[in-house]
Amino acid sequence: MKERVVLALDLGGTNVRVVAVTESGEILARRHSQTGKGSASEIYDLIAELAERCGADAGIKEFDAFGAAIPTTDLDESGVLGSLPNISQLEGTNISREIGRRTGLPVRAVNDASAATLGEFWLGASKGTQNAVGITLGTGVGGGLIVDGRLYTGTRGGAGEIGHIRLVPGGIKCGCGGSGCLEQYCSATAILRRGKQAGLAAESAREVFDLAQAQNEAAGAIFSEMGSYLGLGLSIVNNLLSPDIIVIGGGVAAGWAQFFEPTRESLYENSLPDRRSRVKIMRALLGDDAGVLGAAKYTFQHLN
Amino acid sequence: MKERVVLALDLGGTNVRVVAVTESGEILARRHSQTGKGSASEIYDLIAELAERCGADAGIKEFDAFGAAIPTTDLDESGVLGSLPNISQLEGTNISREIGRRTGLPVRAVNDASAATLGEFWLGASKGTQNAVGITLGTGVGGGLIVDGRLYTGTRGGAGEIGHIRLVPGGIKCGCGGSGCLEQYCSATAILRRGKQAGLAAESAREVFDLAQAQNEAAGAIFSEMGSYLGLGLSIVNNLLSPDIIVIGGGVAAGWAQFFEPTRESLYENSLPDRRSRVKIMRALLGDDAGVLGAAKYTFQHLN
Repeated sequence: MKERVVLALDLGGTNVRVVAVTESGEILARRHSQTGKGSASEIYDLIAELAERCGADAGIKEFDAFGAAIPTTDLDESGVLGSLPNISQLEGTNISREIGRRTGLPVRAVNDASAATLGEFWLGASKGTQNAVGITLGTGVGGGLIVDGRLYTGTRGGAGEIGHIRLVPGGIKCGCGGSGCLEQYCSATAILRRGKQAGLAAESAREVFDLAQAQNEAAGAIFSEMGSYLGLGLSIVNNLLSPDIIVIGGGVAAGWAQFFEPTRESLYENSLPDRRSRVKIMRALLGDDAGVLGAAKYTFQHLN
Repeated sequence: MKERVVLALDLGGTNVRVVAVTESGEILARRHSQTGKGSASEIYDLIAELAERCGADAGIKEFDAFGAAIPTTDLDESGVLGSLPNISQLEGTNISREIGRRTGLPVRAVNDASAATLGEFWLGASKGTQNAVGITLGTGVGGGLIVDGRLYTGTRGGAGEIGHIRLVPGGIKCGCGGSGCLEQYCSATAILRRGKQAGLAAESAREVFDLAQAQNEAAGAIFSEMGSYLGLGLSIVNNLLSPDIIVIGGGVAAGWAQFFEPTRESLYENSLPDRRSRVKIMRALLGDDAGVLGAAKYTFQHLN
């Protein structure tokens, strides 16, 4: 039997990526572009165009399905997208219908951080485990949950919102409307904000990290604090889910050398004794491919 | 084909209950006793004796299996019990071997709060849902998770420890070694402690509740505070797992009239907008039977 191949999308506020992936996880073609500020139908047209080019690059005329990793925590079974803060022009549109119409393929959509978690479980850091948690530290903070060997997406695809664990009662206001969310302490945005508050000459979280690596004490303290909050949040996940492994990905994971030790300590300290040493923490391995690979895997799992 | 019947145990620090349950959930016989302070083998002997009496009462000579709900968060696949604060003489013993030897039955053990959650999912408040969370408010606080229609027990059976979510950084010391755990704010123990601190003439959480019902303001405030903490903790679970329903059981659930409204408000306020109105909160329906029924169901699910 010929190996099945799907198209997979990772749609972000900044970039849109489409790849062609085989059932064994080989990426045959990849295309990407800036997402831009166009209308919903311009964005769907762009996705269809990238998909077509992937088909041409891979020399494949007919794919088995289309998988989509989407930055929303509110997904209808039929494909209607709920709240989508970074690409709000797509809110209320039906991604299955829009992409289906343009490509002729059945479409399966999944939250982007859930997809990245499944990608790492399929081919990356958590491969071979049974219960895994993924956390994506970027502009915001996302997460995903593998339970008993399967991606758990929750009601309306909303599971895994580690970024909105209320970590600090009465803490920093969050874009979600609440306050004290983990995202406000552990994201790139949070690191940069703390850098500016400390008067550092940094225009990005990356630059705060570089200062920390160059022994700037204030910058080091920012990562240390961020790491402690991250460990506290992960301890909540560890106590609640008792996973084998927690995989940390996203752009901020590049700051590993500065935040890992405080994260590990705080996770240990705040976890129940039976599981504080048991849970592994690893850095994600698949980089930007985690989302498309996870979307592809999710789609393969739902093909008959 | 004859309907299968199992024996099911709910072992607590104070009481031990054994029942005979059919595959459709009918309880054919029930026996209970005080747990007492005996040695591990005296406790296992007592369990075997209760089991034998259940068999006699139900007129059944041969059961299909034995299910055990146990107050530990650290369970080996083979049946070796880890930390067991309320019945520490059983720590390190192999429950499958000990009960198996005495009854001749295959034994399956599961955390008690997970069992209660599964019982409610099988026959109680969360029946017919897909994703459900159970929380048991007693002397301590336990929890269980149903994901995609199945009980999720986590690595070494440790999932669902809602009682040890770190709710208040640097808060009240907990028996688990940490501080600020939900259990320290929402258990019967916590309510009584707050009652004593407030100078109330109450010797139990129940009496604090009775005072609150009689319009004692200090007692009302204790339940109001407890409810807010509970809602905050449940919002973390809601944001992380996006369940259909949260079921609240255990002795403290009898205080529903005093804590439900603040719980609901705090859960609403601290949940992501997409799920704050979606999640249902219900009181458990099965009372003391939830644990044995869940242990029975878990055992049926694992019989071939």
